[in-house]
Amino acid sequence: MTSGILGLKDVVSIKDFSRRQIEWLYEEAEKMENVFRRGSDVLRGKILATLFMEPSTRTRLSFTTAMYKLGGQVIGFESVEASSIAKGENLNDTVKTVENYCDAIVLRHWLEGAARFASEIANVPVINAGSGTEEHPTQALLDIFTIKREVGTVDGLKVAIMGDLKYGRTVKSLSYGLANFDVEIYLVSPESLRMPEDVIRYLEKKKMHVEEYNTLDEIIRKIDVLYVTRLQKERFPDAAEYEKLRGSYKVDVKTLSEAKPNMILLHPLPRLDEVDPEVDKTPHAKYFKQPFYGVLVRMAILKALLS
Amino acid sequence: MTSGILGLKDVVSIKDFSRRQIEWLYEEAEKMENVFRRGSDVLRGKILATLFMEPSTRTRLSFTTAMYKLGGQVIGFESVEASSIAKGENLNDTVKTVENYCDAIVLRHWLEGAARFASEIANVPVINAGSGTEEHPTQALLDIFTIKREVGTVDGLKVAIMGDLKYGRTVKSLSYGLANFDVEIYLVSPESLRMPEDVIRYLEKKKMHVEEYNTLDEIIRKIDVLYVTRLQKERFPDAAEYEKLRGSYKVDVKTLSEAKPNMILLHPLPRLDEVDPEVDKTPHAKYFKQPFYGVLVRMAILKALLS
Amino acid sequence: MTSGILGLKDVVSIKDFSRRQIEWLYEEAEKMENVFRRGSDVLRGKILATLFMEPSTRTRLSFTTAMYKLGGQVIGFESVEASSIAKGENLNDTVKTVENYCDAIVLRHWLEGAARFASEIANVPVINAGSGTEEHPTQALLDIFTIKREVGTVDGLKVAIMGDLKYGRTVKSLSYGLANFDVEIYLVSPESLRMPEDVIRYLEKKKMHVEEYNTLDEIIRKIDVLYVTRLQKERFPDAAEYEKLRGSYKVDVKTLSEAKPNMILLHPLPRLDEVDPEVDKTPHAKYFKQPFYGVLVRMAILKALLS
Repeated sequence: MTSGILGLKDVVSIKDFSRRQIEWLYEEAEKMENVFRRGSDVLRGKILATLFMEPSTRTRLSFTTAMYKLGGQVIGFESVEASSIAKGENLNDTVKTVENYCDAIVLRHWLEGAARFASEIANVPVINAGSGTEEHPTQALLDIFTIKREVGTVDGLKVAIMGDLKYGRTVKSLSYGLANFDVEIYLVSPESLRMPEDVIRYLEKKKMHVEEYNTLDEIIRKIDVLYVTRLQKERFPDAAEYEKLRGSYKVDVKTLSEAKPNMILLHPLPRLDEVDPEVDKTPHAKYFKQPFYGVLVRMAILKALLS
Repeated sequence: MTSGILGLKDVVSIKDFSRRQIEWLYEEAEKMENVFRRGSDVLRGKILATLFMEPSTRTRLSFTTAMYKLGGQVIGFESVEASSIAKGENLNDTVKTVENYCDAIVLRHWLEGAARFASEIANVPVINAGSGTEEHPTQALLDIFTIKREVGTVDGLKVAIMGDLKYGRTVKSLSYGLANFDVEIYLVSPESLRMPEDVIRYLEKKKMHVEEYNTLDEIIRKIDVLYVTRLQKERFPDAAEYEKLRGSYKVDVKTLSEAKPNMILLHPLPRLDEVDPEVDKTPHAKYFKQPFYGVLVRMAILKALLS
Repeated sequence: MTSGILGLKDVVSIKDFSRRQIEWLYEEAEKMENVFRRGSDVLRGKILATLFMEPSTRTRLSFTTAMYKLGGQVIGFESVEASSIAKGENLNDTVKTVENYCDAIVLRHWLEGAARFASEIANVPVINAGSGTEEHPTQALLDIFTIKREVGTVDGLKVAIMGDLKYGRTVKSLSYGLANFDVEIYLVSPESLRMPEDVIRYLEKKKMHVEEYNTLDEIIRKIDVLYVTRLQKERFPDAAEYEKLRGSYKVDVKTLSEAKPNMILLHPLPRLDEVDPEVDKTPHAKYFKQPFYGVLVRMAILKALLS
């Protein structure tokens, strides 16, 4: 369904966004920096429901802060255990109930397609806050906004995306989102955690320049953005293989010594040990600024969908 | 204790409500539909505590939304694990502490009598959001309000209540509540899950017309309201008996083909498989409208107790 | 770091407070009683993050109520399980993320030094809501405020602190805080749960009069304040020793019959069986008033740090 100033009822997939919509959203996000500092009443009386069926710190708190800064309120649950889902309720019934209490739903679910399904049955806007291994569109919107703010442009950049590209949802949404811009994408992962074929095909259809690598050192010297994600041990069939490989996907000060001086390093967080804490102090590290840009982008989204 | 415009300090049992009080509350709930859309400041500065010691989606979120729409705030916990109850604190101490932080308490507890006990020791109003297998009075108030809104009247109706009548708390509160109206009640359940004797005696004392049945098909043609609740497997001593019986208590499109065209179907939710999803699309299904009426009724209750 | 009207950026340890700062805070807390009843807009648009990595009822709800009464908003999580900490995120990364969403952080953590560490890396004020077995400074501030309000003075009093003095954090913060006043301290505990040497040394350096006892009956007649804490069974290496000792640390009506008529009894709560419920009705019992004073003190702290 299409409606509102953004031209979308829901935020389910970043593939639904055109470049013009993304740019409009970023103009709005810029304006939110002042609203963030002062607070506002633009969504007074409105209620956002945050339904998180997987753990989250950043995404849930970020949407909550965004809603508060716009003067709205937030209901929801932190975990499945405290909700009727623990009694066996299905997603349909949860959504058809909760839509009576709120003006929009933010949904994180362990299943692919969950957010799309919810958006189709709900009378209120649904925002996908992570659907299985598939997508996390608002994360991608904030990642690209961070690039724009920290580098000054998105077009013309060489962006490396590294880590678990097979099961990670942020790396897929980011790739889809970057397809709206004139960027070169370098995908870096172990053979067994390659970006799925359908994502590659989508990027090629969009005439993107995509290259795949096994290790970072082949490209570290030429990239402008390095986006790192977790390599989760449990994704490897063989623990020994994990131990052998993890070193190649760790970023430390030594790795960065070969990078361009103004290369920026992003991470959706949480991190385990794939980025050495020593790196935090370097000018490359922008991953603790992403959460702030995330609030601005989510404020812009909430305002667009709800006012 | 008696106080306030409703004439009650607490909402512990629907047996404490007269027909006049229920009707007054429903007039207030009607007015809340506009307040719900616009928001309001009538409870600004007031704080509601939601203490849920059993899982809940609907009741907790519904009270929270009701409070927000009236301009108030909400504190509380979603589950026992994150609270001092996990350290062994008793209900007395939790209530005598939390009353210092709030203007009213909504309590769900696994024990019968918990809400009554809390209301007797608390200096603030206590609202029973489910006490063991005993009562869930605000659910009954919203159930009857739904009947009034969807049928146009309560008096003169034939209301069937089906499912686990022994352990279910909503069916007991609903029966007590309906005793204020001129209705006929048909109780449908397996022999082993019959409505307890003391409830039947209460209804008879109130001169209610009550009939008990083992199966729905004996009465499906003549009823105006069908209220379905879960048949929980764990309530049956014998799993084989459960499997044998459950079919008789399932409502599907075929069941409804024999019902009056304007018969309405209610369910306190969550449902498991006792109402087939196909039924959702029929005009009988009103169970996804109950949550909305629930917010209006709870807004009326909160306003009456707190302002 | 030092800033703001209180002269502190953070509230990490009560040892950072001078008598003048405590007295100024209590003057502010007095003024908050009216604000509590009416509500206020002084922190409108501000957001407090409550990060609780151990269970809590009182402290979390108390800070939340304090923030609401000042017109602010609250984000956070109730338990580690629902957050990214469950995915292995360290405290540094949680704090460097969450500071982007809020104007101050309230942190409860199982590790000594956690709050100090957080305060050193955070750009926003950090309030220690319990750090391991080390400190709980806002609890001590409200404990002493309760003494001041209920007795009328702190100077000149004889204060007994009883229970697990080795692992309890409230008893340590209370002792440090009382060191700013002219009081005599009587420490009562089993031999194996004595107050640690470094705390005793701190008190002696501050020229405090400190005496240690094994049982309460040696001093019950002369004290003005009795502060009781839990004796946790799991702290005893030998269950039999626990059973033998617990009777000596239980306070009941008989114990109190020997006390001064105006002696006041405090407890940080939750209690298990160390204070008999019969005692609740005596004029000695002030432990259900402590939570109310706690809201006032925390309102004063939040206003001082955030406005």
